[in-house]
Amino acid sequence: MQKTKGLILVFTGDGKGKTTSALGLSMRAAGNRMPVCFIQFIKGSWKYGELESVKRFEDYIDFQVMGRGFTWRSDDMEKDRALARAAWQRAKDAMESGKYTMLVLDEFTYLLKYEMIDKEEVLQVLRNKPATLHVVITGRGALPEIVELADLVTEMKAVKHPFKAGIKAQKGIEF
Amino acid sequence: MQKTKGLILVFTGDGKGKTTSALGLSMRAAGNRMPVCFIQFIKGSWKYGELESVKRFEDYIDFQVMGRGFTWRSDDMEKDRALARAAWQRAKDAMESGKYTMLVLDEFTYLLKYEMIDKEEVLQVLRNKPATLHVVITGRGALPEIVELADLVTEMKAVKHPFKAGIKAQKGIEF
Repeated sequence: MQKTKGLILVFTGDGKGKTTSALGLSMRAAGNRMPVCFIQFIKGSWKYGELESVKRFEDYIDFQVMGRGFTWRSDDMEKDRALARAAWQRAKDAMESGKYTMLVLDEFTYLLKYEMIDKEEVLQVLRNKPATLHVVITGRGALPEIVELADLVTEMKAVKHPFKAGIKAQKGIEF
Repeated sequence: MQKTKGLILVFTGDGKGKTTSALGLSMRAAGNRMPVCFIQFIKGSWKYGELESVKRFEDYIDFQVMGRGFTWRSDDMEKDRALARAAWQRAKDAMESGKYTMLVLDEFTYLLKYEMIDKEEVLQVLRNKPATLHVVITGRGALPEIVELADLVTEMKAVKHPFKAGIKAQKGIEF
């Protein structure tokens, strides 16, 4: 027998297309009049093109920029950690609000990888998410526990990448 | 030294996210006010959600549905082939028009895989594409010659897929 439920989707791997897929998925959902909360956990990873395009969906996509670019300087680590926790709290609030049919946690994997937030708590929250809510998680190096928990996992594998061939970032492609 | 040029991007593999990435990329480009031509080579693969969402970008995204669902009945193969050729002609016209900065050939790989159109001609056209035009090709089983020609190739690898677990297609996720 088939079940209907909110899925946990993970886009991981080192190839292009993780955030872009989440963006496409959000717009597809918006096209279906399904309200989406899109939380960007790393500030600065989105550029002008995306920001302009989500604006056209502000009736359905609630786009929230949290955190900031990681600094990796020890004196800023506490600030980064506090921002990561605040962003995670925002995600939990969105989950509990019942307002959304899809919650995107963009570049969320880094927070777990670098232990900015508590892994066990994240797993528990995801396990107990509202039954009909779709959760989309993107970022490199998804932890095995997240992969285990997910319903759908796509690894974006870089077969070829233009930076390696000395071509610089392109407007509309990279940003 | 770094070069600036229009890229050939390929999203292939059996995982989710190929067309969704192309959709996200198109909307990102539209956000940058870059005109996009998006040709869907297999009719019926797009559903309500996507169609509604691209409508919001009709000032920048020229969305064209070509071909039809493949039938695989021998008496229809000639019709399929004729439609495939017409769709490919449309793509070439879009390329030559100079109107677009990005051309998406969605589910294009199937036409080559099933020899609906001439491979050598396709390779020649892609090799001689306008220098600044970005071409995005999606679909499973991209031919090695296309991968070779491309600047960026991401293989969407299905690590986990919910259909295997008996969960039916979800509105806003699959369509």
